[in-house]
Amino acid sequence: MSEPGDRLDVVAVGPHPDDVELTCGATLALLVTQGYRVGIIDLTSGEPTPRGSEELRAREAEAARQVLGVPVRVNIGLPNRVLMDEPDGRFRLATELRRLRPSVLIAIASRTPAASPDHHQGHLLTEAARFYSQLTKWDDRFAGTPPHRIPHLVYAPTPFDAERRNWHSTFVVDVTDTFEQKLAALRCYESQFDPARFEMIKHFTSGRAAAEGAPCGYKYGELFALPHPVGATDLVRLVRGAKDGSPTRPGQDHLPMG
Amino acid sequence: MSEPGDRLDVVAVGPHPDDVELTCGATLALLVTQGYRVGIIDLTSGEPTPRGSEELRAREAEAARQVLGVPVRVNIGLPNRVLMDEPDGRFRLATELRRLRPSVLIAIASRTPAASPDHHQGHLLTEAARFYSQLTKWDDRFAGTPPHRIPHLVYAPTPFDAERRNWHSTFVVDVTDTFEQKLAALRCYESQFDPARFEMIKHFTSGRAAAEGAPCGYKYGELFALPHPVGATDLVRLVRGAKDGSPTRPGQDHLPMG
Amino acid sequence: MSEPGDRLDVVAVGPHPDDVELTCGATLALLVTQGYRVGIIDLTSGEPTPRGSEELRAREAEAARQVLGVPVRVNIGLPNRVLMDEPDGRFRLATELRRLRPSVLIAIASRTPAASPDHHQGHLLTEAARFYSQLTKWDDRFAGTPPHRIPHLVYAPTPFDAERRNWHSTFVVDVTDTFEQKLAALRCYESQFDPARFEMIKHFTSGRAAAEGAPCGYKYGELFALPHPVGATDLVRLVRGAKDGSPTRPGQDHLPMG
Amino acid sequence: MSEPGDRLDVVAVGPHPDDVELTCGATLALLVTQGYRVGIIDLTSGEPTPRGSEELRAREAEAARQVLGVPVRVNIGLPNRVLMDEPDGRFRLATELRRLRPSVLIAIASRTPAASPDHHQGHLLTEAARFYSQLTKWDDRFAGTPPHRIPHLVYAPTPFDAERRNWHSTFVVDVTDTFEQKLAALRCYESQFDPARFEMIKHFTSGRAAAEGAPCGYKYGELFALPHPVGATDLVRLVRGAKDGSPTRPGQDHLPMG
Amino acid sequence: MSEPGDRLDVVAVGPHPDDVELTCGATLALLVTQGYRVGIIDLTSGEPTPRGSEELRAREAEAARQVLGVPVRVNIGLPNRVLMDEPDGRFRLATELRRLRPSVLIAIASRTPAASPDHHQGHLLTEAARFYSQLTKWDDRFAGTPPHRIPHLVYAPTPFDAERRNWHSTFVVDVTDTFEQKLAALRCYESQFDPARFEMIKHFTSGRAAAEGAPCGYKYGELFALPHPVGATDLVRLVRGAKDGSPTRPGQDHLPMG
Amino acid sequence: MSEPGDRLDVVAVGPHPDDVELTCGATLALLVTQGYRVGIIDLTSGEPTPRGSEELRAREAEAARQVLGVPVRVNIGLPNRVLMDEPDGRFRLATELRRLRPSVLIAIASRTPAASPDHHQGHLLTEAARFYSQLTKWDDRFAGTPPHRIPHLVYAPTPFDAERRNWHSTFVVDVTDTFEQKLAALRCYESQFDPARFEMIKHFTSGRAAAEGAPCGYKYGELFALPHPVGATDLVRLVRGAKDGSPTRPGQDHLPMG
Repeated sequence: MSEPGDRLDVVAVGPHPDDVELTCGATLALLVTQGYRVGIIDLTSGEPTPRGSEELRAREAEAARQVLGVPVRVNIGLPNRVLMDEPDGRFRLATELRRLRPSVLIAIASRTPAASPDHHQGHLLTEAARFYSQLTKWDDRFAGTPPHRIPHLVYAPTPFDAERRNWHSTFVVDVTDTFEQKLAALRCYESQFDPARFEMIKHFTSGRAAAEGAPCGYKYGELFALPHPVGATDLVRLVRGAKDGSPTRPGQDHLPMG
Repeated sequence: MSEPGDRLDVVAVGPHPDDVELTCGATLALLVTQGYRVGIIDLTSGEPTPRGSEELRAREAEAARQVLGVPVRVNIGLPNRVLMDEPDGRFRLATELRRLRPSVLIAIASRTPAASPDHHQGHLLTEAARFYSQLTKWDDRFAGTPPHRIPHLVYAPTPFDAERRNWHSTFVVDVTDTFEQKLAALRCYESQFDPARFEMIKHFTSGRAAAEGAPCGYKYGELFALPHPVGATDLVRLVRGAKDGSPTRPGQDHLPMG
Repeated sequence: MSEPGDRLDVVAVGPHPDDVELTCGATLALLVTQGYRVGIIDLTSGEPTPRGSEELRAREAEAARQVLGVPVRVNIGLPNRVLMDEPDGRFRLATELRRLRPSVLIAIASRTPAASPDHHQGHLLTEAARFYSQLTKWDDRFAGTPPHRIPHLVYAPTPFDAERRNWHSTFVVDVTDTFEQKLAALRCYESQFDPARFEMIKHFTSGRAAAEGAPCGYKYGELFALPHPVGATDLVRLVRGAKDGSPTRPGQDHLPMG
Repeated sequence: MSEPGDRLDVVAVGPHPDDVELTCGATLALLVTQGYRVGIIDLTSGEPTPRGSEELRAREAEAARQVLGVPVRVNIGLPNRVLMDEPDGRFRLATELRRLRPSVLIAIASRTPAASPDHHQGHLLTEAARFYSQLTKWDDRFAGTPPHRIPHLVYAPTPFDAERRNWHSTFVVDVTDTFEQKLAALRCYESQFDPARFEMIKHFTSGRAAAEGAPCGYKYGELFALPHPVGATDLVRLVRGAKDGSPTRPGQDHLPMG
Repeated sequence: MSEPGDRLDVVAVGPHPDDVELTCGATLALLVTQGYRVGIIDLTSGEPTPRGSEELRAREAEAARQVLGVPVRVNIGLPNRVLMDEPDGRFRLATELRRLRPSVLIAIASRTPAASPDHHQGHLLTEAARFYSQLTKWDDRFAGTPPHRIPHLVYAPTPFDAERRNWHSTFVVDVTDTFEQKLAALRCYESQFDPARFEMIKHFTSGRAAAEGAPCGYKYGELFALPHPVGATDLVRLVRGAKDGSPTRPGQDHLPMG
Repeated sequence: MSEPGDRLDVVAVGPHPDDVELTCGATLALLVTQGYRVGIIDLTSGEPTPRGSEELRAREAEAARQVLGVPVRVNIGLPNRVLMDEPDGRFRLATELRRLRPSVLIAIASRTPAASPDHHQGHLLTEAARFYSQLTKWDDRFAGTPPHRIPHLVYAPTPFDAERRNWHSTFVVDVTDTFEQKLAALRCYESQFDPARFEMIKHFTSGRAAAEGAPCGYKYGELFALPHPVGATDLVRLVRGAKDGSPTRPGQDHLPMG
């Protein structure tokens, strides 16, 4: 299933350690169980924060990586809190992408006025780095790595975007089987989520996953978007990905099960 | 707080018994605890369904009413499954509205291709009946009831609309204190939700309420929409309705609580 | 790949003969080559029109069916030009759906002020009939046919909708291999498209298919939408349905192919 | 009504003196009359302009402040015409926010291709500075000011945005009682609005306020938006903020007043 | 400028007398002054209303017609308050359109939950009747009138639509020169607008016209929408229809006038 | 038709040579034939690319210019691949705009995650430079050129935007007569489009132009958008720009031509 030249199948990029877990952690764990080669790139250390340190954060990220079973996790050390979509950061991220050579790139997509501006800048920066990954004639800007074209870009939207987005298409991955792994990975970030906060996070994250999964008939789902319509070669196979029916009015006017 | 001529403060209208509970049941229970006079109008009996009967359904609706503490519940007997936005149904609903004389009308707003076309027709019919409620010179069409103008219309959107709506405004009510009542009211509809299905409904309904509440800092919320922007006389009071902050990244860069 | 109880895999419903061909004819032909059992339901005869007759139109529809290789085509004889989303029409269509028992239902979705109001009414009617297909206890309204739940609904949007739609999700099927069949099927409708008009239709239809296919890297594509996000169990397989890249700026900063 | 740690209740931030007046001046005046502690931050001097100077502009801003009755107005001296959302500017604004410690932050939200790019950059910068306001461990970047979390962010949209926004929610404040103060404040900016231009501004500003107020039944209103749904603890109180009815068809089918 | 077969250039259709005046009255008056042949069709008498009668309403409509200078006004007598998009009404309206043979049809487009459901039904009915106007072989349904194709459909949106519309395109007509005529025409409807109400209507209608005109640099404008992009043969001529600039920040950084 | 002070009527700005051709090349050629004075500004050389060089690219751009008949083409030498919306670039572009003094500015508007981030940055930069063009008192930043206000801004959207835009208005120019010139101009870019790729480009570009033109009845069209509604002084003239009818269902229920 891999495409020629790929080293990894999927790489997810987030501004801070725990962003990837929050938006698509269960999907990454699922991809691993499905045999795909998966990687995570954290753009910044996520520090400083009130109760964290770079060392602590790195250990937490490593623990979360293990919980998800993701073999590769890289932190490229861009500046936290002041992350900007600028050429230097693009070069840094693209260099790593040219090393990992993914077929699919997952970018966290959001502008979050209740949280860090790094999210919006990281979104733009990741889009740009995807393009830079394929650039020729500028090998020196990319530490000598060879060009690599990443054919597929996927957005992982955060739930608290400043404005409603007009995505061309959205899809939901059934993460019922790996949702507990996601929660366990989040639990690793103890410097960010003390027990009381973790319960709050767990409550909301579980709720969101239940709500996102429902329209497709999944107990838990993670939502993604694309910069174009989904491409399909087989309509029936595509639509049969969703299970039969939503839970809202399952009794009324449904056929008896037995 | 009541306006002159009101008999009730709030009336919620749904096509089938259980629709009102599913979309805004916890809000209705909350309004009761806040001292408002609340009523429910079911447009149809909801029957036939596979395991229901008119009598059974009526008993379930009455039980749910008691759980929510809502003093008034009326079923106007329009035809289930073939509900249409037509003058006769509008007259029937408007007559009841002229009797109950609410200040606020909640209409379930949705087009649900996975469920009954009654939802879309009921939405249009409820909007029309609100207008009919105030009509003069046609008392004979309204069983002699006097005209009543309903100043406020609120939409209760269902989660599985066929298309994304462009509401002018949305708001979320904090239903943390009455969410259990909502679940208990839904549990009354045993003919529609057998134990296995109820667990599914509970899972999804809880998830949705957690997800809707989160942006406003509520443990559980119910979402509403308006056919115009929210009107406010006090900006600070309005925005302070939302609690401080979302749960997504509560640790990072937040102030220590202590 | 079929689900228990299905007689057909896919049924496409259009108001007039030639509507299904115009919106998703190439996809239907492709599904046939992929081994799926496909059917077409025409809601009306499409007559009267200036140069047609019911007999002529039926012959053209039959010829088009053969070109597409679709084994089943039914005309349920609802009234052309005055098609309305009403219970009787819903019963008629649902009865046929309960006979054909599809797993996937394709509904033409549009409101076309430059063309017939039948399109909008047919859209609503098809959604309703999908729901009616599963109804119990009303067998007499459906000619004794047993209930059948259709798990998957797909919209085939027309290009000239009165307003831009906010679909939850869109997808494009690669119809490069069957696009000629679509044109050939359209050519069968000589009473509607004389040679000069057919050239115009061909020009525009080819253009639209090229434009729809491009974002997914297909020479020709047909666009569909869903009333919910696409459901996926395998993110990589889903996104790899789209070919690598768009044609707009293929030279610039792309890697040499060789 | 103040929250612990607040020095001000509301701070409005605009790129240039007069921006705050144009978008939400009447609301600020109203808040003052309602007893709230209100402040204005101007990001730049607004100069150079054809007929202005820094001194003149400062005097005009001070005069406008007095007209509105706003006790605090600060100009943080970021560069006009080349305002960029960059870390240094964010630090500057956040430092001021940590001094003023508002509970509600109003940000002018727009991208205005007919006017200055400062509007778009200022919008992003204000969102970022709100986040920076709460940052710990970086006191040196904020002149030693202590962290302050601003729980509520409100957008004041300008009327000439380049694209239509998809706000989660909009609301309108009834500014009938303070609209004249807004006009009087704008009249202070004589270097920007000579008498002929002021008449044009007055004509349009009055028109916009009448049009924004109408859906909520207000003679004059100012429109705001939120990055999330409005949060409400009392549905009836929320919706009763809007007065009864719109002016468009007030006679037809309305009850006689007397 | 007329097209072959036209009897009128423009016909505007509204559900009740005064609807056309409220949405596009100034544009109709302007078109008359520009030499176009203009007509108005009222679908219903607008009665009953609290203070009106059919005779009174007809006199008011006639007076308003004279104020606007529109030579043709027809009332086709469909039922007020219970107007439905049904075949009979479509035939009635299409018959009149086949008599008047317009080149451009203006339809009032809205769903107004604060006002009559006739608005939504009238919108759908007018779209359908436009199509019916060209039908062949059904002359008996159209009182023997010959088919007439209406090439251009324009929407006149009302300001209080239940949801925000996604129009393909909007345009604003400069009605500065005829805005007083619009107000004078509205003043004719004394049964609907007593002096106090008329002042309110005047306030809001003037405000809306000022707000709609502003983005195009007009003192007063009326907003329209199209079911497709505007078609242009000359880009420069098209965009030069808008005057230079908006009034919001006319002083700042503008060139001195002198 | 020119406005006082204009040197050119229309200037189109694109990030790389060939961008202007791809989005609006046929319209520029048409404007030339209509007698307008037209110019092109390329922001960067477009180099490096795999098979290009600065010299080669310049020759190609010059050849394309000749094919389109556009008299003026300027390359302002901003950095390719790392184009950013920054003050220096804005000054450079604005200086050129103050020399060319256009009445209409066409900006390529898009965020293209499948292609260069230069597109998004170039869009923002062009909007800003339009504003800078009119600035007074900063002549030294603009090489002594006098201020020039550009009254009209037009967006040329690319087909592969990351998200669907909510334009206020869109319009389509009939480019049937100059579409071949557009293809010929694109053919000049041999370093970017080798013969195989050119065929792919031609296929897609022709398809898109056919699809864009169709709703307005044009064989080929180019799509544009505006940051405000279209302004019109004559409604009939505006709507008659679109030809009669779409090609989708031209036979059915249309009048016979003869």
